[in-house]
Amino acid sequence: MTSDQPVLLAAVSLLSALHMGFLARRVGWSRMKHKVMPPSVTGPAEFERTFRAQQNGVEFYPIFLVVLWISGIFCNEVIAALGGLLYIVAREMYFTGYINESKKRLPGFYMVICVLLFLTVMATLGIIQSFLHEYLDVKLH
Amino acid sequence: MTSDQPVLLAAVSLLSALHMGFLARRVGWSRMKHKVMPPSVTGPAEFERTFRAQQNGVEFYPIFLVVLWISGIFCNEVIAALGGLLYIVAREMYFTGYINESKKRLPGFYMVICVLLFLTVMATLGIIQSFLHEYLDVKLH
Amino acid sequence: MTSDQPVLLAAVSLLSALHMGFLARRVGWSRMKHKVMPPSVTGPAEFERTFRAQQNGVEFYPIFLVVLWISGIFCNEVIAALGGLLYIVAREMYFTGYINESKKRLPGFYMVICVLLFLTVMATLGIIQSFLHEYLDVKLH
Repeated sequence: MTSDQPVLLAAVSLLSALHMGFLARRVGWSRMKHKVMPPSVTGPAEFERTFRAQQNGVEFYPIFLVVLWISGIFCNEVIAALGGLLYIVAREMYFTGYINESKKRLPGFYMVICVLLFLTVMATLGIIQSFLHEYLDVKLH
Repeated sequence: MTSDQPVLLAAVSLLSALHMGFLARRVGWSRMKHKVMPPSVTGPAEFERTFRAQQNGVEFYPIFLVVLWISGIFCNEVIAALGGLLYIVAREMYFTGYINESKKRLPGFYMVICVLLFLTVMATLGIIQSFLHEYLDVKLH
Repeated sequence: MTSDQPVLLAAVSLLSALHMGFLARRVGWSRMKHKVMPPSVTGPAEFERTFRAQQNGVEFYPIFLVVLWISGIFCNEVIAALGGLLYIVAREMYFTGYINESKKRLPGFYMVICVLLFLTVMATLGIIQSFLHEYLDVKLH
């Protein structure tokens, strides 16, 4: 399934962008609930957990996009897109867990790391294969 | 106007990257003005507003890039690029407003959200159309 | 050396994504060392410097990716990729310097800025050339 434009990667990226926007929205709701006025980012523990949960998502989002697109373009678009969907689920688990209790962020966090490592391995294999093919004229399959 | 390389999207992305760098620069200037030494990120209210205004830009920047490129590639490059220019203007309004007074961030913020929603709708339509075309062999126009 | 897929840019992006993940990991280790429990981001000075060093990397990462890819696609992939490698080295110098002492972040920081400006100039020239070629049918070489 080679396509002109990687529509599956685009669809998953768009979904993840909406999810990131939704996390930011929930920080806004948490501000209102706990009366934490901007620019302050400190307050009740629940607000601080919500804020940090979103911030962790922000820190990892460009990393996610890089491994998603490279694994999808250089290795396999369908598997990368499924990995991307799993990442969004893991991010949601992380966020929902974290706002309840700091420790409850961990299952989602481990899943986030697993998905990112999986996509990184895919991306690395894809790049090595493409490199061999392009610069050394070796075809692996 | 289909092009080999999406030069308009690239131009707007480069401009937005320069603008993001400029926001970071202004946080640095605010540090000097208010004598807030790194790694501290707390201090006089004006510095904290400046810092948060930039941080909000950082949080949304990858989201912006995702919807800009997907709407531009899968829907219409010229309209997406114009939306991108509007986003940079909105970001500047948000930043300038915020450093003056917390409430004054709001007009720019609403404009940021409107542009992002507009680009998201464009991107969604483009992906749906491309999906129908590619996997179901349906052509909408 | 025009290629079907920009494998050098992809390789450098993947490397930089791994490096960003590694910086996040070292903030986690610093949390353990200094017993700073999430969601807190304040504590001993060394922890706060480590956290801010990573945060600065997060702020600049999308800017870096934008100028890396645009300079690589619209100007010269090999030179852009070498610039990207230099950026990763500069980021590491910044991080390692910063966790030792605030002032020691500066050499790495200046190098980060130099690389970003260099890639920005390349990207700008590439876009101008591509723009002239595409819309005005002017070929510069």
